[in-house]
Formats: sequence, C-alpha cells, structure tokens
Amino acid sequence: MAGADTTPRLWIKIYFGERGQLGPGKIRLLQAIDADRSIAAAARTMNMSYRRAWLLVDQMNQTFGQPVVATRTGGSARGGAELTALGREIVARYLALLDQAQGQSAEELAELADLIQPDD
Amino acid sequence: MAGADTTPRLWIKIYFGERGQLGPGKIRLLQAIDADRSIAAAARTMNMSYRRAWLLVDQMNQTFGQPVVATRTGGSARGGAELTALGREIVARYLALLDQAQGQSAEELAELADLIQPDD
Repeated sequence: MAGADTTPRLWIKIYFGERGQLGPGKIRLLQAIDADRSIAAAARTMNMSYRRAWLLVDQMNQTFGQPVVATRTGGSARGGAELTALGREIVARYLALLDQAQGQSAEELAELADLIQPDD
Repeated sequence: MAGADTTPRLWIKIYFGERGQLGPGKIRLLQAIDADRSIAAAARTMNMSYRRAWLLVDQMNQTFGQPVVATRTGGSARGGAELTALGREIVARYLALLDQAQGQSAEELAELADLIQPDD
C-alpha cells in the first residue's frame, strides 16, 4: 500500500482545439486577480511577471472571444482589475469539473497508487 | 455555439505527491516502446533524444519503485526493450482513467465550450 504522501491528485488541462487551452495556472491567475483586484498584484502573488500575467489573460480573452478580466484605469498607472461574469463562470466551471473528475476517478487513482512500491 | 474544432479534450496528469507524476508524454513513450520494442526507436518515434527517453523511463521506475521497462542487451549496443507487466498495467489504467474522465465530464466540457464566442 502506498503512503499518504502518494495520494494521487489530478492535474487537468482542457484543450479547445485551435482556440487554445485552459489549465490550473490560468485558473489560479484568475483567482488571484479576483482576490487582489489587480493584475499587477495577482502577478506578484503568482510570482510571475506583469507581462506574463497579461499574456495569459489575453490568451484567455482570445480563447473565449470575450474579456475574462475587466480593467479600470485608476489613479495609479496600473489601475484595478476584476473578473468579468465570463471570467467568474470559467473559474467556477473549471473547479467544478476538476472536483467532479477527482471524485469520480478516486477508485482508479487509488488502483494506480497501489501499483507504487513503498520505499520501506 | 462553438465550432467543431473547439470540441474540448481533457489533458490529465496524475501527481503522486513526492513520488512524481504521470502524464500523456510518459504514457505515449511507454506505448511507443511497446510498439517499437526499443527505447532508441521509441525515442525517434517521439522525436526526443535517447537520453530524454531514458530519463523519463527512469523517472517512472522511481515513481513506482519497480521497472516499467525491461531491457535486453542484444547484438547491437542498444538492445531491445519491452514493457514489464507493471508498465502495461500503468498504460492500461491511465488510458481507462482518461477515457472515463472524458466521458463523465462531457456535459461540463460542453458547457465550458459553449462559453466560447464563435469567430463569425
């Protein structure tokens, strides 16, 4: 039997053909933007560059054909930002899908983990 | 409604905590070794270096604590190879899990795809 630290977890990316893909990194970025109300602050939270965060947001805008983040130019050079209704729905649906897949695959994941030979 | 080319597909990686992870690349490599009966030939099929293929096989051996590939030193410097029973079981269980997850998530995936604004 495998130890507790080998409890398998799913990591799911969704490919939308030529429209791109959506995975844990982009979802975590959206969650950080939602929490921090700023792309710059979310980038710092995610330990990525502002440019990288913008690129990922832009990729999602391209994938879905509509903005997932709404920006507001405030007093500072880099104004606030918040998720659009679409952005919120994408996060919610992705998390629901992940949660469901993890739950429904629990038996198969446990069988795979049982193939692991313990260290001791 | 999204076009046919945006039909979403799952890409699943399984994390076994500190023991490592298993994803589509490693599974495809095992399938290629099974088909080609050689790690060197499988590496060519996968368009990766022999060293890279060996590294991935070794990572799987480490994850599962037993060999996933058995090598035979033949007449050539790089003898044949084949999957062990463990290697075969890993491939079969991963593919079954992926197939099941794709099927069970079909409705959620379709709903996510419906969020995509068509180009036209």
